[in-house]
Amino acid sequence: MAIILDPTEVARNFRKEIREHVQALGHPIKLVGLLAHESGPSVTYASYTQAACEDVGIGFELRRKERLSLESEIESLNGDDSIHGVIVYYPIFFNEQDNYLKDLVSPQKDIEGLGSFWIRRLYRNERIVDGNQNEKSILPCTPLAVVKLLEAAGCLNSSNNQKPLAGKTVTVFNRSEVVGRPLASMLAHDGASVYSFDLLGPLEFNASGVFESTLTREEALARSDIVVTGVPHREFPLVKCSEIRPQCVCLNFSTYKNFVDDIVTKASVFVPRVGPMTVTMALRNTLRLYNNYHIKKNYPK
Amino acid sequence: MAIILDPTEVARNFRKEIREHVQALGHPIKLVGLLAHESGPSVTYASYTQAACEDVGIGFELRRKERLSLESEIESLNGDDSIHGVIVYYPIFFNEQDNYLKDLVSPQKDIEGLGSFWIRRLYRNERIVDGNQNEKSILPCTPLAVVKLLEAAGCLNSSNNQKPLAGKTVTVFNRSEVVGRPLASMLAHDGASVYSFDLLGPLEFNASGVFESTLTREEALARSDIVVTGVPHREFPLVKCSEIRPQCVCLNFSTYKNFVDDIVTKASVFVPRVGPMTVTMALRNTLRLYNNYHIKKNYPK
Repeated sequence: MAIILDPTEVARNFRKEIREHVQALGHPIKLVGLLAHESGPSVTYASYTQAACEDVGIGFELRRKERLSLESEIESLNGDDSIHGVIVYYPIFFNEQDNYLKDLVSPQKDIEGLGSFWIRRLYRNERIVDGNQNEKSILPCTPLAVVKLLEAAGCLNSSNNQKPLAGKTVTVFNRSEVVGRPLASMLAHDGASVYSFDLLGPLEFNASGVFESTLTREEALARSDIVVTGVPHREFPLVKCSEIRPQCVCLNFSTYKNFVDDIVTKASVFVPRVGPMTVTMALRNTLRLYNNYHIKKNYPK
Repeated sequence: MAIILDPTEVARNFRKEIREHVQALGHPIKLVGLLAHESGPSVTYASYTQAACEDVGIGFELRRKERLSLESEIESLNGDDSIHGVIVYYPIFFNEQDNYLKDLVSPQKDIEGLGSFWIRRLYRNERIVDGNQNEKSILPCTPLAVVKLLEAAGCLNSSNNQKPLAGKTVTVFNRSEVVGRPLASMLAHDGASVYSFDLLGPLEFNASGVFESTLTREEALARSDIVVTGVPHREFPLVKCSEIRPQCVCLNFSTYKNFVDDIVTKASVFVPRVGPMTVTMALRNTLRLYNNYHIKKNYPK
C-alpha cells in the first residue's frame, strides 16, 4: 500500500523554518489580502492565509473591497513601505480582467509569484535576481508546493543539485498558466522529461525546451515515474491502477478526484491534495521578497 | 434611411496620410508578421496586413513559424533594430498562453497596442509618453478604429477637443480585454457615459471612473446616442429598431450580425464592420512608434 503523504505534515516543517526566520529578523512583516468576492473558495483561502500568518508570526490584514476599487487599492499597497506582500483572492471579475489585475501587483510584493515579471523568469530558468546569488527568484506557490511535496515523497535525487529530477519521467494533467505550464517548466528545468496534457493535446517539456508530442495518455502514463493531476472537471477519466507503473508517485492538486481510490494499492506514495503547502509557499516567498527588496531598506537602522 | 458608412472609404483617407508620412520619412519601415496557425481568420488578417503595407509603402514580411518557436522569435525581433513593428496572428495556443505571448512583444514594436504596457496607459488616460508632447501613447487597433469611425459618422464634437463625446451616451455590447473594455474606457475618457454589457452584467464607464450599474439592456439602449456591438455569438438577441433611439449611430465590430437588417430604417448612420480600419490603425500605430522610438536613432545621420 502507498504511503499517503499529508501536505499539512510537510507544511509543518516549512512553517517551523519560516517562524524561526521571522523571529530572527526582528522587524514586523505585514501582508494584506484583498477580498472582493465572498465566494466559498476565496473566503476559505483568506482564512487559511490568516491562520498560517498567525502560526509563523507574520502580520496579516484582510481588506474587503469593492471589485472596482481593487486597481487603485493595489497601486496604493504597491507604494506603501509598511506592507511587504499583497495577495488578491481570485476570481474577482470571473473573466480576463482578472489577468489584468494579477499583473498590477508589484513584483516586489507578489508573494504568489503570479505576475508576468516572475513567470517570465521562471520560463527562462533565471533562478536569481540581477546576478546576485543572495536574491533568489520567486516561484508561483502551487507549482512550488508540488515540487516540495515530490521532494518530501523522495522523488528528488539530492546528489544531483542542478538536475535533481534527471532521468525521471512525469505526466502532468493540466496546462493552465497558473499551475500546469509553470509546473511542467520547473520540473523540466530540474531535469525531468514531462508530458503535459490538456484538452488541446500533449506537449513535452525537457531540459532542451518544449516540443510537440504525439504520445497518448496511455503511453505517457506507462513511462511515468510521477503522475501529477489537476483537472477541475468531473468528466476527466480517473487515472486507474492499470495505467500507472508500479511504485509510481501520484499527486493530485485539483479539488476534484482525479485518481481512482485504489490507486494506493499500486502507487508508492499518494499525495491527495496540496492546499496547506500552497499557503506555506506564499509565506516562504514573503520572506524571500523581504530579503530581496525590503531588508536592505531597514538595515542597519 | 441610415447612411451606411463603409470602413474602406474611411480607411482610404487615413492610408493617404500614412503614405505621405512614410514617403516623407525617407527611411524604410519594416514590419514582421508571425503566423503559426493556418486558420482562416489569421491567414486573412495576414494577407490584409500585407496588402495594406504595400498600399502605404511599409515593408512587410510574413514569417510562418512553429507555435513553440514564437517566444524566441519574438525576442529576436524585439532586439532587431531593422524591424520596427511586430504583429502576431492569434489565436496560437487557443488558451491563456496566448496572453503570455502578447506581453512579450516589446512596447516599442507593439503596433497592435495589445501588451500591458500600452493597455495600462490607456486605462489611466496617459496620452503621452514620458511627459513628451511629441510622443503619443499607442491605443489598441480595434477600439481606435471604432472611435475613428464614430468620428467619421459625425459623433464627435470637434469644438470640445478634450471631451469630444461630452453629453453622449453609448451602449457597448462586449467587454473583452482586447476590444470592449479598452473601448469603453476610451469613450469615457472622451466624455461619454458608457454602459458596457457582457454576459456577467453591466458596468458604467464615465469621466469619473467605472461603476456598478443596474441598468437593463432596454434602459441603456433607450438612453443611447450610439450603440456599439461586438458579440461573437449567434445566440445574441439582435438589437431591434424598437430598442434604439431615432437617429442613433449603430456600429457592429463583430463578424456576426448583431443588429436586425432594418436597423437602417431608424438609425442615422450604420457601420456594419470595422476590419479595414483595424489594419489601418496598426499602420498608424507603426508610424507613431517609429516617431517615438526609432526616428531618433536614425536622425541626423
